[in-house]
Amino acid sequence: MADNTLNTKPLKANEDADKGKYLGRTIEHIDIVKNPGIVPVVEAMAHMAFSSRDLHRAADIYDRMLRDKECGVILCLAGSLISAGLKKVFVDMIRNNMVDAIVSTGANMVDQDFFEALGFRHYIAGEELKSGLYDGELREHAIDRIYDTLISEDDLRICDEVTGKIFDELEPRPYSSRELLREFGVYLDKNGGPKCADSIIYEAYKRDVPIFCPAFSDCSAGFGLVAIQAAKGDAPHMSWDGGKDFYELTQLKIKNKETGLFMIGGGVPKNFTQDIVVAAEVLGHDAPMHKYAVQVTVADVRDGALSSSTLKEASSWGKVDTVYEQMVFSEATLAVPLIVGYAYHKGGWKVRQGKRWNQTLEPANVA
Amino acid sequence: MADNTLNTKPLKANEDADKGKYLGRTIEHIDIVKNPGIVPVVEAMAHMAFSSRDLHRAADIYDRMLRDKECGVILCLAGSLISAGLKKVFVDMIRNNMVDAIVSTGANMVDQDFFEALGFRHYIAGEELKSGLYDGELREHAIDRIYDTLISEDDLRICDEVTGKIFDELEPRPYSSRELLREFGVYLDKNGGPKCADSIIYEAYKRDVPIFCPAFSDCSAGFGLVAIQAAKGDAPHMSWDGGKDFYELTQLKIKNKETGLFMIGGGVPKNFTQDIVVAAEVLGHDAPMHKYAVQVTVADVRDGALSSSTLKEASSWGKVDTVYEQMVFSEATLAVPLIVGYAYHKGGWKVRQGKRWNQTLEPANVA
Amino acid sequence: MADNTLNTKPLKANEDADKGKYLGRTIEHIDIVKNPGIVPVVEAMAHMAFSSRDLHRAADIYDRMLRDKECGVILCLAGSLISAGLKKVFVDMIRNNMVDAIVSTGANMVDQDFFEALGFRHYIAGEELKSGLYDGELREHAIDRIYDTLISEDDLRICDEVTGKIFDELEPRPYSSRELLREFGVYLDKNGGPKCADSIIYEAYKRDVPIFCPAFSDCSAGFGLVAIQAAKGDAPHMSWDGGKDFYELTQLKIKNKETGLFMIGGGVPKNFTQDIVVAAEVLGHDAPMHKYAVQVTVADVRDGALSSSTLKEASSWGKVDTVYEQMVFSEATLAVPLIVGYAYHKGGWKVRQGKRWNQTLEPANVA
Amino acid sequence: MADNTLNTKPLKANEDADKGKYLGRTIEHIDIVKNPGIVPVVEAMAHMAFSSRDLHRAADIYDRMLRDKECGVILCLAGSLISAGLKKVFVDMIRNNMVDAIVSTGANMVDQDFFEALGFRHYIAGEELKSGLYDGELREHAIDRIYDTLISEDDLRICDEVTGKIFDELEPRPYSSRELLREFGVYLDKNGGPKCADSIIYEAYKRDVPIFCPAFSDCSAGFGLVAIQAAKGDAPHMSWDGGKDFYELTQLKIKNKETGLFMIGGGVPKNFTQDIVVAAEVLGHDAPMHKYAVQVTVADVRDGALSSSTLKEASSWGKVDTVYEQMVFSEATLAVPLIVGYAYHKGGWKVRQGKRWNQTLEPANVA
Repeated sequence: MADNTLNTKPLKANEDADKGKYLGRTIEHIDIVKNPGIVPVVEAMAHMAFSSRDLHRAADIYDRMLRDKECGVILCLAGSLISAGLKKVFVDMIRNNMVDAIVSTGANMVDQDFFEALGFRHYIAGEELKSGLYDGELREHAIDRIYDTLISEDDLRICDEVTGKIFDELEPRPYSSRELLREFGVYLDKNGGPKCADSIIYEAYKRDVPIFCPAFSDCSAGFGLVAIQAAKGDAPHMSWDGGKDFYELTQLKIKNKETGLFMIGGGVPKNFTQDIVVAAEVLGHDAPMHKYAVQVTVADVRDGALSSSTLKEASSWGKVDTVYEQMVFSEATLAVPLIVGYAYHKGGWKVRQGKRWNQTLEPANVA
Repeated sequence: MADNTLNTKPLKANEDADKGKYLGRTIEHIDIVKNPGIVPVVEAMAHMAFSSRDLHRAADIYDRMLRDKECGVILCLAGSLISAGLKKVFVDMIRNNMVDAIVSTGANMVDQDFFEALGFRHYIAGEELKSGLYDGELREHAIDRIYDTLISEDDLRICDEVTGKIFDELEPRPYSSRELLREFGVYLDKNGGPKCADSIIYEAYKRDVPIFCPAFSDCSAGFGLVAIQAAKGDAPHMSWDGGKDFYELTQLKIKNKETGLFMIGGGVPKNFTQDIVVAAEVLGHDAPMHKYAVQVTVADVRDGALSSSTLKEASSWGKVDTVYEQMVFSEATLAVPLIVGYAYHKGGWKVRQGKRWNQTLEPANVA
Repeated sequence: MADNTLNTKPLKANEDADKGKYLGRTIEHIDIVKNPGIVPVVEAMAHMAFSSRDLHRAADIYDRMLRDKECGVILCLAGSLISAGLKKVFVDMIRNNMVDAIVSTGANMVDQDFFEALGFRHYIAGEELKSGLYDGELREHAIDRIYDTLISEDDLRICDEVTGKIFDELEPRPYSSRELLREFGVYLDKNGGPKCADSIIYEAYKRDVPIFCPAFSDCSAGFGLVAIQAAKGDAPHMSWDGGKDFYELTQLKIKNKETGLFMIGGGVPKNFTQDIVVAAEVLGHDAPMHKYAVQVTVADVRDGALSSSTLKEASSWGKVDTVYEQMVFSEATLAVPLIVGYAYHKGGWKVRQGKRWNQTLEPANVA
Repeated sequence: MADNTLNTKPLKANEDADKGKYLGRTIEHIDIVKNPGIVPVVEAMAHMAFSSRDLHRAADIYDRMLRDKECGVILCLAGSLISAGLKKVFVDMIRNNMVDAIVSTGANMVDQDFFEALGFRHYIAGEELKSGLYDGELREHAIDRIYDTLISEDDLRICDEVTGKIFDELEPRPYSSRELLREFGVYLDKNGGPKCADSIIYEAYKRDVPIFCPAFSDCSAGFGLVAIQAAKGDAPHMSWDGGKDFYELTQLKIKNKETGLFMIGGGVPKNFTQDIVVAAEVLGHDAPMHKYAVQVTVADVRDGALSSSTLKEASSWGKVDTVYEQMVFSEATLAVPLIVGYAYHKGGWKVRQGKRWNQTLEPANVA
């Protein structure tokens, strides 16, 4: 793709002088590497009650996953985590072999991480905007809101467009979301790397960490898929094959029987990843339950939905073992830096090798 | 498919005498048609405060959607709603032209509605099972738990198998989930209709109401998709094309510009359906925002996730108009019978025609 | 009460023409007596899942309390319930011998019920006011906000003043909140009854149902107590003796061993009432645990606070028996009309006598 | 009181060997003084989203309160905070002039802080106990449960007894809870100080920080009050005068007009403390709204209750100013160490004097 993509004309007029007043302060990503002071705080929490004690136990289980050399670590991401300032936490996990696969909502990967890799930013919203009473005004300025965070829709449209172009240049066949996200990494690599300090997609590409988006049409990438469908109709064209996603992730479980889950939020990433144990059985393999499982969520178990369902409940389905499981009742931006910061500075990952699972799935790509 | 499918041998030995003790009481679906007494209760709530007032307003907005003849009504389903006893509510909505399209998690449609259509049931769990402390015991009996509800995994495996067979017999090409769910309806029709009183999939098939599962691999159907992928490899085979889902639903928005959303829970169904406004724009059409929107959820806005995001926030993205929008803070089994019961007995749907959108998408199928 | 009380000059100038625009629509209280249609809806919920099933069980337990002739029924009220339109529900409970004692926050009794008995009303707030962005504007008009409900502060100041006058005329000694709330009933009686259709305080007075506010200074009444303290200093004066509250409620438990709790919200009313089992033991009596217990709340157990603590947890303290206990996860305005409506129309109360516990505590007052 | 009080015979037989197996691991209180590493973590949160950004702002507002020399800082405590391991955080606040008054539930002060000061401990519950299924078993061993924390009821009965004895020795008159809690401090001082490292009651006594429990009968102290009432009847005896609590706290507001609130949880402490602005006005003083306000809570605003009501809403009542207010959506054990740790290590308190408000209320006691 030529550089001019990044200079694409805004789809909406946004030359209004006012737009800038909303987009003055950028979201900056927390750096847990610089914060060894997290460790004694989390250690003290072991002896307290309620969420603090649970958080310590979750951090300890994550540390155990990393020290268990057989264990493949799968990170599940749901909720607006990248726009919220957690990007560098996940990038540091990839850089330091603290994660072997990522299963995410499309928004975190495409609309937020790839978006920032193209040089765009998320912005801090003024307090009063959270009320929703100014959303009409934001709409007039083509500004999108995620609770307390703002995005220029013009920037997002450029991201959509780049996504569409990446898809356009692919040979016509069905792809897993993992293959497509790897192409995003290739794109960034060919264009001089990300235009920001850190990118999950790019770092994962470099280190052969597969990323799956099991509801891939449900994000910016979906617009690219729709456009191709509209343009090509019944003619051969690239498409996203969600069944292939499930097949590939299941293959990893079959080939690396011991697994641990680090889940942030619930939703499709949680359910989809838990389900690979059953899928392996369907394919005739005797895969064990996920050995370790941690989930950070504020969802309430009483609504009976999957996002809030306990990890014990998952054990009735034969998906998650119950010896090392822990849920943490906390909004993610509070708990995740503490959990990952603890595990990072405890250093269990230091003698660990990354699984480089992209090589497992695509041996042909390995030099 | 021959009847013998339904007699498939259990994958696990479950002849243990004990299993029955867990599965003695069945979930029965509430019948709002029989309950005109809902109307005065909901009307009284208009003059109260908090959730009751919001619930009345949501019911009133749903009634307005039905009276607005231009409006296509899209029902979004997330959470374990069918297993919870809400199936007949949704079937009655289909039967009475109160809904024109359904966007759902796969579990509600395949694991729960189709599952019951095959003659299986959901069961009431004993109170103590909710603790999770007996999940190991349940596992031994091959019983799966959804909070306070139980499922025989043997039954579920048969459902998986039927699903796999339906897929097996399809010609090799990519399908939208809507096309696949229509095939489930065809299957039921060929096999004498559902083996239970009501089925969403069957009723929707008969009345040309399209059903989309935008994360279709994330349910029992996924196991069928994985099995085919494993069996066929690179040979031509049927596959699920998630991009086609998005394309089709967007076509409906383009052809029927006025739309109203009735969302139960959040997740992918909520986001995906809101996004078709933008997708229409991407395809060069000037589709208006969703004119009406109601959401029932207990998700907390403070976690910044999509499930809990306000409908006002969606208006900043240009997805939902703000004149007729209402969120209701309630677990679904309490609020949904009241909202739908109110709209049913107010009778706004009586002069309404169903949009029969399956005919719009597949004119060749129309007799 | 002399008329001039009600004509008291507003403490703040509110002759502004604008005030009326906020206070146009009044809160009206739901009438469950007129709604027998609640019964089949709640009965259907018995066979569903999640909150609906729990709600049915709670309604059934409340019905059992009423049919158990030995059982004294204690209603615990926390949260803004009267201003939310639930007043008539509680009045109908009193009128029909469905409750023997009330333990409440002061706000529900003084600021809301007595306030309406003086002829004042609560008002429906415009949707945009819930954002909090107009609270400065409301302040300028002397309008107080409870989430989505408005109160004229001038009206509230008159209520404070009447309260102060009632206290002023009492002989100088310590009083329980029950004695004081009985005086509010006497006051209404002397002044021609409540200036509105229904009053909890008045109806309870007429039927000898004691009302306790164990944090009585934490409401409008507190201002009256402060004023007297300021005026009288060390001179003899009436005062509120919170220990006497606890003593009196404990006496009722000692004299009527079987008790059932119907708790709406948590807070001090929940804890205080549960604690009388222990208090009876401290006084050397062998009182049994509360035999029945129902709580309606949305509080989350994971914060470890008393409001959200399970009724099972209360059994570890020896306060609540576990055979008939049920928590319902619902905002009160949805669940309470269904639970009480069910019990009312099932009619278990019809052969029940009210305990007339005010006579137990003050035999001298009985004619 | 003689030492033998502490050796009082257990009220229940607990010589069973089993009891120890539940009470093996003690709760230990987090020490924020040792953790300067909190500061950069909280500073990074300023540039993130959701709860982290709110937490930073709350910490910053607390730091501003401390740097504003006119401002009296009032700490409001609701929820089981001391048993959860936060005691030393609050003690360090007192020691370093970071708080001028405390308004608390009785449980935090009497059942938990004073309890530990008598040498007793809180214990970590085994994970399975949280289910509530073992509460009958706990009851048999006279062990009380607070979610995931255990207490020996025998220890608690001794605490009740000591409380009763302190009350017994007081001259017969009405007391504010502040006066009574000061007597608890005197008791500890006379008996060699607390039998543990840190005590809020003791430290507050030494530094003239008043502690109010506006629902004082609703805790262990209530049992003492009940016992005296039972023993003395109409004879003169000490009593708790809740109106005096309100009067005294209002006096502090009148004498020190600028105030800031640091609220943990909601309940009576939140409402009562906000109300003193109105009480001051009732007494004819023109007290300004609370200038600063921070609340840590997970309560959901949609239930309309006071605990969850926004600080903006409080401004409509004229209680809290809106320039420096911030709510933080987090369970307390996660957020409180971060907020107080930040403010401690930023050192704004270093040039601050404690207000020694007990001297304001009882000038006679000043040497």
